[in-house]
Amino acid sequence: MKSISFRRVGLFAKVSAPETAKLVHAVLGVLEAAGIEVLVAPDVAGLAGGAHSVPGDQLGAQADLIIVVGGDGSMLAAARAIGWVSTPITGINLGRLGFLADISPPAMQASLEAILEGQYSIERRMMLRAEVDGHLIGHACNDVVIKRHDGSRLLELDAWINGTWISRTRADGLIVATPTGSTAYALSAGGPILSPGLETFAIVPISPHSLGERPVIASADHGLRLSPRLSEEEKAEAVLDGQIIEILSPGSEVHIGRSDHQLTLLHPPGYEYFATLRQKLGWGGRAPQC
Amino acid sequence: MKSISFRRVGLFAKVSAPETAKLVHAVLGVLEAAGIEVLVAPDVAGLAGGAHSVPGDQLGAQADLIIVVGGDGSMLAAARAIGWVSTPITGINLGRLGFLADISPPAMQASLEAILEGQYSIERRMMLRAEVDGHLIGHACNDVVIKRHDGSRLLELDAWINGTWISRTRADGLIVATPTGSTAYALSAGGPILSPGLETFAIVPISPHSLGERPVIASADHGLRLSPRLSEEEKAEAVLDGQIIEILSPGSEVHIGRSDHQLTLLHPPGYEYFATLRQKLGWGGRAPQC
Amino acid sequence: MKSISFRRVGLFAKVSAPETAKLVHAVLGVLEAAGIEVLVAPDVAGLAGGAHSVPGDQLGAQADLIIVVGGDGSMLAAARAIGWVSTPITGINLGRLGFLADISPPAMQASLEAILEGQYSIERRMMLRAEVDGHLIGHACNDVVIKRHDGSRLLELDAWINGTWISRTRADGLIVATPTGSTAYALSAGGPILSPGLETFAIVPISPHSLGERPVIASADHGLRLSPRLSEEEKAEAVLDGQIIEILSPGSEVHIGRSDHQLTLLHPPGYEYFATLRQKLGWGGRAPQC
Amino acid sequence: MKSISFRRVGLFAKVSAPETAKLVHAVLGVLEAAGIEVLVAPDVAGLAGGAHSVPGDQLGAQADLIIVVGGDGSMLAAARAIGWVSTPITGINLGRLGFLADISPPAMQASLEAILEGQYSIERRMMLRAEVDGHLIGHACNDVVIKRHDGSRLLELDAWINGTWISRTRADGLIVATPTGSTAYALSAGGPILSPGLETFAIVPISPHSLGERPVIASADHGLRLSPRLSEEEKAEAVLDGQIIEILSPGSEVHIGRSDHQLTLLHPPGYEYFATLRQKLGWGGRAPQC
Repeated sequence: MKSISFRRVGLFAKVSAPETAKLVHAVLGVLEAAGIEVLVAPDVAGLAGGAHSVPGDQLGAQADLIIVVGGDGSMLAAARAIGWVSTPITGINLGRLGFLADISPPAMQASLEAILEGQYSIERRMMLRAEVDGHLIGHACNDVVIKRHDGSRLLELDAWINGTWISRTRADGLIVATPTGSTAYALSAGGPILSPGLETFAIVPISPHSLGERPVIASADHGLRLSPRLSEEEKAEAVLDGQIIEILSPGSEVHIGRSDHQLTLLHPPGYEYFATLRQKLGWGGRAPQC
Repeated sequence: MKSISFRRVGLFAKVSAPETAKLVHAVLGVLEAAGIEVLVAPDVAGLAGGAHSVPGDQLGAQADLIIVVGGDGSMLAAARAIGWVSTPITGINLGRLGFLADISPPAMQASLEAILEGQYSIERRMMLRAEVDGHLIGHACNDVVIKRHDGSRLLELDAWINGTWISRTRADGLIVATPTGSTAYALSAGGPILSPGLETFAIVPISPHSLGERPVIASADHGLRLSPRLSEEEKAEAVLDGQIIEILSPGSEVHIGRSDHQLTLLHPPGYEYFATLRQKLGWGGRAPQC
Repeated sequence: MKSISFRRVGLFAKVSAPETAKLVHAVLGVLEAAGIEVLVAPDVAGLAGGAHSVPGDQLGAQADLIIVVGGDGSMLAAARAIGWVSTPITGINLGRLGFLADISPPAMQASLEAILEGQYSIERRMMLRAEVDGHLIGHACNDVVIKRHDGSRLLELDAWINGTWISRTRADGLIVATPTGSTAYALSAGGPILSPGLETFAIVPISPHSLGERPVIASADHGLRLSPRLSEEEKAEAVLDGQIIEILSPGSEVHIGRSDHQLTLLHPPGYEYFATLRQKLGWGGRAPQC
Repeated sequence: MKSISFRRVGLFAKVSAPETAKLVHAVLGVLEAAGIEVLVAPDVAGLAGGAHSVPGDQLGAQADLIIVVGGDGSMLAAARAIGWVSTPITGINLGRLGFLADISPPAMQASLEAILEGQYSIERRMMLRAEVDGHLIGHACNDVVIKRHDGSRLLELDAWINGTWISRTRADGLIVATPTGSTAYALSAGGPILSPGLETFAIVPISPHSLGERPVIASADHGLRLSPRLSEEEKAEAVLDGQIIEILSPGSEVHIGRSDHQLTLLHPPGYEYFATLRQKLGWGGRAPQC
């Protein structure tokens, strides 16, 4: 628990969800009662009466706390919008617990008030950066996925870790995930859960052709080089946190490494990573008495 | 590649295998031709003519290189016999490539001669230590496994990482594996491959009751506490590298952390971890030309 | 829905569970109010006042409906106790939905009254029979499991389907499961869900050494022969529905085929197999409107 | 082994592969020496000197045996080209054993001569038929796959077996596979191996969002209904044996059932399904002596 007092909050919201408007108003009510200045992302202005609207890419610099009303996807979108700057982000989920958006609507008021009084924890999560043929294409909190882009399924791809060739994979694609992303797509594809503080990434083939191909965990100190093997008319794509960012042509190479940015999460009092995990994954059992 | 010259070699061998005697003689021939003094483990003396026999637990101190003729299991047994001291170990497999015993019989002479001339690489692998109720029970290169010991199948077990409760698992057992062990039992149970230099362990439930229970990768900087939930007549066991080391009664707790020891492997020139992995797991493909 | 009226009910219960007594009393109340004669298994007599106690192996013949208060394990135990005769069995679970015991305590009265009025469905589930070296060792509703019995882990085993050799497996064991058993141990070990009416069994290796070993589904029209490869001092075991039934010595062979018996389940109105599955496995979603 | 003598052979080949020409010539040599009339698919005419070229869709009716030079994909393409008629098909693989193309080049001459002398076995494999909104879109030997067609990843889809709703799946897609297809894409996605004579299909979600979603095996006697949940701007696709056959719009429903066609395979003497499986999947072991 660190004690930084917040003066100006930037607000993002998933405006397409029907329950968002009511929750945004409740959040604004708590912030106003605490005398906090609120800046809102442009698409939230319509929901937020007279609130001051500021372009998303300026909200990170102008606010000292970002609040997101939405799900994990909205959290990633907000982090992307503010350009991955280190302004802490916290999320109020729309009713379904998120891995990132961990404040529930019923707990919103108490959690926000506690946070505004300095009761919170800050967690920094490792991110990825991706280059294609020498130019930076972006950063990712969850994962970089390489897949076919031409409607075909099977991708053949060579991978190197730290300059050493590790495999030629034939699969529906390859996921490179951070610890944060290890509970997202990579988990569905058979990857393990990486504890959030680890400086590693998970390399997870999607439906690999060979049954011996298994997820490999590598140190984030090492760069990863991926080279899709494409013929003339074939295309692949690099997908960062679910967004198609770059189309890959024959000969293109993708370099993935640790980003200079970090996802800076702010959690309310009482947050525990494994409590969220247990609830999201349906792990049984109650805390032992000891 | 480091250049230490070896003067005295300690020799272990899997004496129960029929092809061992011939390979031991060939190894002795190479060592004698190079003027190296050879000490042998007591059970190898019968195969090794007039060789000087020394108790296994003194071989690590008296020799400056340990050579093992056998498989990965023989490598682990030799490391255990010398008390996990840092004398480098190298292995000549009996015909089937091992993850640890990586010199094949046909390559034996050339590899040993190169090694004796100082052409080799040294790799240190993280190990685990395990305590039960406050007393050390041993060290493991591969894994610590907790299972039922009373003929029943299902084990219920609470686990904590770094003091934080993570789950109550119902499973056939729980594997805690090092990177070295990640390609052994843990892989069969659905765990990922941990790159050998990582300072992490894989916590892998065996046939867990809940489909949401998945392997968790945690930092070796954190201790792991495991508490089997047993009734009066039930017993569990702690298995280190395949050896049942301790019977667990109701109330027993197991603490697992990073060992002070390391497995010190010596590899011949040309060794590559991922080349072994590709061959052992049947990964397709040939090295790309680039 | 078939309409057989029941006159005499045999009652089994999991007497070790604290909540059983109350539920047994409630069941007896409903049965008495309906004028049904009740016979109870001997261990239930203590809970069931003046009820007439009858040895378990005679209950199937003397009663025309078996009611079990307990979980899926209690259902299997009752089916075993009555000698797998075709008397229909229904189960009232102790609060946690079972795959077999599908009447919840709150629904007990309405469900029993409906059943006694002839509103129910009967489902017959395929069972397995197992022989060792030519003598019958028993029948199983869920599965026959072959494992090591001597404290060691790895079992090497040859398998034949219909006389054709299919594999030499190295694993922690092998599960042969019915469709009923496909949602039990076999599911934890990575097997698929077999729809309940299928006349097939799933052959599922447990933590197999080779990653290419995968569950095989075979027709119940074909017999399965399993031959564990054991050395002199080694033992294996044949486990039927969780009970160790036979110790296997070197040279023993296990033959598994379709049993002449069937598990005869009686379901209350409204039962749906896939509804139970969705709830037990946490499948998302609500029934589509269409 | 049945004894039908063949007089006229239809020849398909994977003309794009460099090693095909030589193998086609060798096959033609064996057929000519045996006095067999040869008809070739149009694209093979260039490789096959003066051979009589016949449109693919007439080859099934005009020939009494189809020979394919290529891999499993070429076998499927030939079966599709001849309109799934019951003319037996056999395949000579281009060097890598196939599940369907099971004659190796070195064994080609002996195998073909044996076949032409009436030494072979015929195997009929179940196929699928697929309808969209009431019109037949095609037949499949391996699988029908439903996926997104608009570049997005996650598909939400309701499934019914025999009119009963089983699940709402969120996944990268859903595979419905025959026993033949169970060793193809479905295996990569985590499905089991269905013995080739089974009249069942495997319903395998691809990277499902919920870890509780597992492959379901259902009887081919029951129809399967799949309803993708798409919003206005979203599209899905139905892929039969790897070919995108139909684009699905919001509201489209796919019905899948057993086809009236069967894949009619002709195997050379000595063929065994499980021998192919062991070799393709790297299962260890040699046939036991007994």
